[in-house]
Amino acid sequence: MLQNIRIVMVRPRGSGNIGSVARAMKNTGAHDLAIVGAARTESFWAKAMAVHGRDVLAGAKCFPTIREAVADCTLVVGTTCRSGLYRSHSQTARELAPTALAAAHDGKVALLFGPEDHGLSNKDLEHCQLLLTIPTHPDYQSLNVAQAAVICLYEFYVAALAPAQDNGIHRAEAENIERLFDIMRNALLKIGFLDSENPEHMLLAFRRIFGRAGLEAKDVRILTGMFRQIEWYANQGWKVVEEKEKRGIKIR
Amino acid sequence: MLQNIRIVMVRPRGSGNIGSVARAMKNTGAHDLAIVGAARTESFWAKAMAVHGRDVLAGAKCFPTIREAVADCTLVVGTTCRSGLYRSHSQTARELAPTALAAAHDGKVALLFGPEDHGLSNKDLEHCQLLLTIPTHPDYQSLNVAQAAVICLYEFYVAALAPAQDNGIHRAEAENIERLFDIMRNALLKIGFLDSENPEHMLLAFRRIFGRAGLEAKDVRILTGMFRQIEWYANQGWKVVEEKEKRGIKIR
Repeated sequence: MLQNIRIVMVRPRGSGNIGSVARAMKNTGAHDLAIVGAARTESFWAKAMAVHGRDVLAGAKCFPTIREAVADCTLVVGTTCRSGLYRSHSQTARELAPTALAAAHDGKVALLFGPEDHGLSNKDLEHCQLLLTIPTHPDYQSLNVAQAAVICLYEFYVAALAPAQDNGIHRAEAENIERLFDIMRNALLKIGFLDSENPEHMLLAFRRIFGRAGLEAKDVRILTGMFRQIEWYANQGWKVVEEKEKRGIKIR
Repeated sequence: MLQNIRIVMVRPRGSGNIGSVARAMKNTGAHDLAIVGAARTESFWAKAMAVHGRDVLAGAKCFPTIREAVADCTLVVGTTCRSGLYRSHSQTARELAPTALAAAHDGKVALLFGPEDHGLSNKDLEHCQLLLTIPTHPDYQSLNVAQAAVICLYEFYVAALAPAQDNGIHRAEAENIERLFDIMRNALLKIGFLDSENPEHMLLAFRRIFGRAGLEAKDVRILTGMFRQIEWYANQGWKVVEEKEKRGIKIR
């Protein structure tokens, strides 16, 4: 049921936590573990904490970047315990679970957990289409990373036990969306819409909107086409258009 | 909000787990930690895993028996991942959370976690009025004890965020109910209702019924009175009653 849920641990520090996450995955029927950065899945503490989840641990895949770790995923969810400008649209684990499960019906869903000390950075969150927060007491909001993972897996597992709901959206893979953003960034920088010092700031608003909407492959094609056209126009196309206009030729 | 929730770790083996539980308690605003058996809250791993939950760890109380650890509690809940004769009436963490929170409104609620290897024994469960199970994948049902605790605390915390529901039941303290059972056991052994080899077996059915009902102090008084009367009758009272009958005197 959680076969299509990929747990992505971003730059984890404690190998014991990797093992604890592997065990919690096995407890909930998930098996797809990805690690961004050094793996250390062979360490003593990783194995000791995994107990009967050692097969999950042994099958973990290692990636140098988040982008590569989530390339084939159709939904990328970041976890955060902090609030703030880039994090205000987060949903609780319980709210988000049905969306994640619906997406996992016909695609891979990545759930990202940040390093123990500071969690996912704003840079890391750029890869995330949705954000998830676990409600905690204001006195001490920071959950241990393995504890956060077990709560999310538990919520997803409980949601998966409920009858499946297909919302009819077949999300595009993350890498396709990243390519769309590469094209968007170029085009919107070119026309001066994005601040060249911090283009990601404005793009985050789009990530949020697209993440909520759930872009399908055909949506990505349409948007990609539009931003290619913008870039084309900004580079050389305006001359062509001007020339056509001068001669009274229809532009399209 | 979880001030009245007492986490009772029964004979824990790993001091790291004690620390992890302390952290999870701090994350959810709980602080009342009890340990049955050796404490080891001063150990390196306990402190390392507790992080900012060290005050919870330092405040942990140690008890030689479960009975003493839950004496002042008005609801005692056992956790189990196994099913079986004595465990078939368990509820999920989510189902049970509102009941626990309602009881915590005006009394202490104990949530018991067993040792890492085998969990709570049937003997341990005798102290429990309700049983809680966390849904897990059939391939690997046994959660790490700290992981189980964090899920329960999380469920209680989320339930506590919802508007409080008072079901109007003011549960009696566990020690009062244990005294009732002491009296029941004697009385029912005396009249041959209980198997003297295994009196607890039949008593468990009563524990289950009373647990579900939620006995108030006045209910405990009434039941205690009834079983005292049974014992009195069985010991000497029958003679008195017989004599009265013979003389045509009203028994009461």
